[in-house]
Amino acid sequence: MDVRTYIEDHRDEFVAALKEWLAIPSVSADPERHPDVRRSAEWLSAHLSAAGFPTVEVWETGGMPAVFAEWPARDPQAPAVLVYGHHDVQPADPVEEWETDPFDPVERGDRLIGRGASDDKGQVLFHALGVRAGLAASGADAPPVTLKLLVEGEEESGSPNFAELLKARRDRLDCDVAVISDTTMWAADTPSMCVGMRGLTDCRIDLYALDRDLHSGSFGGAVPNPAAAMARLLAGLHDADGRIAVPGFYDDVLEIGAEERELLARLPFDEAEWLRAAGAAAAAGEAGHSTLERIWVRPTAEVNGMWSGHTGAGSKTIVPKSAHAKVSFRLVPDQDPLRIQEAVRAYVRSAAPDGVRAEVEFAGPGVRPCASDLSSPAVQAARDAMRRAFGTDVLYTREGGSGPEADLAEALGAPLVFVAVGLDDDRIHAPNEKVEVPLLLKGAESIAYLWESLAGQA
Amino acid sequence: MDVRTYIEDHRDEFVAALKEWLAIPSVSADPERHPDVRRSAEWLSAHLSAAGFPTVEVWETGGMPAVFAEWPARDPQAPAVLVYGHHDVQPADPVEEWETDPFDPVERGDRLIGRGASDDKGQVLFHALGVRAGLAASGADAPPVTLKLLVEGEEESGSPNFAELLKARRDRLDCDVAVISDTTMWAADTPSMCVGMRGLTDCRIDLYALDRDLHSGSFGGAVPNPAAAMARLLAGLHDADGRIAVPGFYDDVLEIGAEERELLARLPFDEAEWLRAAGAAAAAGEAGHSTLERIWVRPTAEVNGMWSGHTGAGSKTIVPKSAHAKVSFRLVPDQDPLRIQEAVRAYVRSAAPDGVRAEVEFAGPGVRPCASDLSSPAVQAARDAMRRAFGTDVLYTREGGSGPEADLAEALGAPLVFVAVGLDDDRIHAPNEKVEVPLLLKGAESIAYLWESLAGQA
Repeated sequence: MDVRTYIEDHRDEFVAALKEWLAIPSVSADPERHPDVRRSAEWLSAHLSAAGFPTVEVWETGGMPAVFAEWPARDPQAPAVLVYGHHDVQPADPVEEWETDPFDPVERGDRLIGRGASDDKGQVLFHALGVRAGLAASGADAPPVTLKLLVEGEEESGSPNFAELLKARRDRLDCDVAVISDTTMWAADTPSMCVGMRGLTDCRIDLYALDRDLHSGSFGGAVPNPAAAMARLLAGLHDADGRIAVPGFYDDVLEIGAEERELLARLPFDEAEWLRAAGAAAAAGEAGHSTLERIWVRPTAEVNGMWSGHTGAGSKTIVPKSAHAKVSFRLVPDQDPLRIQEAVRAYVRSAAPDGVRAEVEFAGPGVRPCASDLSSPAVQAARDAMRRAFGTDVLYTREGGSGPEADLAEALGAPLVFVAVGLDDDRIHAPNEKVEVPLLLKGAESIAYLWESLAGQA
Repeated sequence: MDVRTYIEDHRDEFVAALKEWLAIPSVSADPERHPDVRRSAEWLSAHLSAAGFPTVEVWETGGMPAVFAEWPARDPQAPAVLVYGHHDVQPADPVEEWETDPFDPVERGDRLIGRGASDDKGQVLFHALGVRAGLAASGADAPPVTLKLLVEGEEESGSPNFAELLKARRDRLDCDVAVISDTTMWAADTPSMCVGMRGLTDCRIDLYALDRDLHSGSFGGAVPNPAAAMARLLAGLHDADGRIAVPGFYDDVLEIGAEERELLARLPFDEAEWLRAAGAAAAAGEAGHSTLERIWVRPTAEVNGMWSGHTGAGSKTIVPKSAHAKVSFRLVPDQDPLRIQEAVRAYVRSAAPDGVRAEVEFAGPGVRPCASDLSSPAVQAARDAMRRAFGTDVLYTREGGSGPEADLAEALGAPLVFVAVGLDDDRIHAPNEKVEVPLLLKGAESIAYLWESLAGQA
């Protein structure tokens, strides 16, 4: 029996199991749901044990538990793979906008509707199906690679205990490749692999000029205006080409390679439709880059908010005493959030005119960007595996947002490979979340091929 | 008996009358005080009648009444002078910060403390004393000029009915010179004449870019950011020299003349002390101009307020959908608020990038700047009269703020002359308002000389 046949034969069983799991409202952000998060961990443990994983453990953290499962390879020299996913889900709010009960999953044709269907229970569960399919096809009783699953229980709450867990369990997590199954592909008919995520650092900037607001008749024109100074400071973040003008900002930016650029350009991207969905009348951004490049492979500086002086109704002709802004920077490999913070601090200092005191406070250490090494055998193996499963070429995407993946990769010292089959229209974090069951099956098929391929590379 | 002796002999009587008037809480902004505003008009009418004005009328308006008094010159060919002042006062709030009852005036040495002592009852009342002193010195039974007093009752409420009153009573107000007694001089030992006031126009600017706030990870770098666009727009209001970069903005600006510039530079101005009082750490503004020039004779563009996106606690990494600002422009002769509004509208249109819709809304028609013609005989006569009264040279000042004086001058078709003896530390509009009685007496003396001098010019 080949991999695909096994998977198709077990479709209903897979969906039934997933429905059972989705019925557990494992909302990590809601303390009242914490018993359900624990139930979710137990359900997954039982399911992975039943799938054949010889080691399955519930790992306690300072918060909600993770599930760890391990299945040694038949060949002790085979590489080890660690799969990352999470078993907690977003809150269902606003519940009234759901067409079905978020925790009573419903099949509609090929779709399964319920909170967590795509993010991330469906994508965790296809790993159990995939490894079984590989065993059935090979006739072996152990997978071709040492397979480790680490399924977190607090991802939707910002993974507050994850770094500590990685540190405490570092030895058990040793691996040669880290596979992330928590993202999306371009479209059902355009399979793709995410090959990078932007990092993030964000700050608040305060400019203080006066002890109090001053009458603009008596003082206007002769004292520093911090709102105007803030405007100049924020305007100076970009040059006329939309490039970020903070000195040193691009020092560590890796330009996108020709191969990735070519693959990005092949994505069937309808810019007009994208702008319509964004509610924007025009594209904007760094000259010389496409919209997809701008949101995926180029760093940004965005003013998230600003305020100063009189913001109420009517006129109040003052020189305000202070001005404030919140600014975030999306980062790309190999930018380091801490180096960027230093560059921004230096820029703000240089941009504050005489008589204006500037303060910058960053929200935290920031999130580092990450990217797969496109030339690595693991990425190529994953792309080949997906191509074989989907029967069509597999393109590259990235994500503009941020996650803990860079920290995971660094903690494990292993290259990152994203194998995921969610879609952008799966409505994750929104009412009526769904997943396309055929894509989950393709995910299972892909990783069955991938484990074989990685074993062959060893 | 000479003018000065008469005035000194009548000092106590003058102060007693003023105290009586100050005890009437004629707060035009407070509807509960409106009967008091009427009582104030009646008190003034009686006082002016007693001083000898043959015509005294209470003029009703849509709001609080004005007082009009007229005393024809002994020579029917003599010029007519109209004196403008007001008999309403600011609210006393915060009352708890007054060291004495604001409406129970108290003498402390040369000072008289009470709401309206300087702004403007004291300065109105010295006109009654001055004309009596002139009559006593000349032995005549009518003043050397036809003297008209127009004492408004709603100045502290923005003079909402004043333009209408001027229009309705235009014939009665005919004059050759308009004298304003509602401002200040530099210092008790540095008498000065105000020779101009800045105008004002202010607006709200709105930039709309998106239907909703967008996630800066998913969209950042590829859609217009209206907060950044607003920052560029506001930053572009000034060039690197602090000059306003709105095209056409300076077209109608009259550069200050050499004489006025020289007199301004002679004012004993302590910039460090001024900055300390302003609560500012450094001076700022248009290159090539002193601080006094910047606040008096140069136009400004000040950001009064701005707001966009996330202004609360913590991080919210969005691209905001819109951005807003309030901007005011102080204007100098001969700038026209309506022409400036057009220039600003054109600038905002040109500054809005692709995909960003800009709206500008001005608060109203604005206030026109005004200035005395320094070469006019009336201004020279007033300066000479004050020099004679004070026994020292009289310098020029201006005011950075705005009043209805330009409209008054235009309505009357007469040149403006400011004769006033308030001080900047009189705490007008603030608790513990006071006036220096000796300066009020010098005001009375000045206008006695001035009326004689203007009659001689006829």
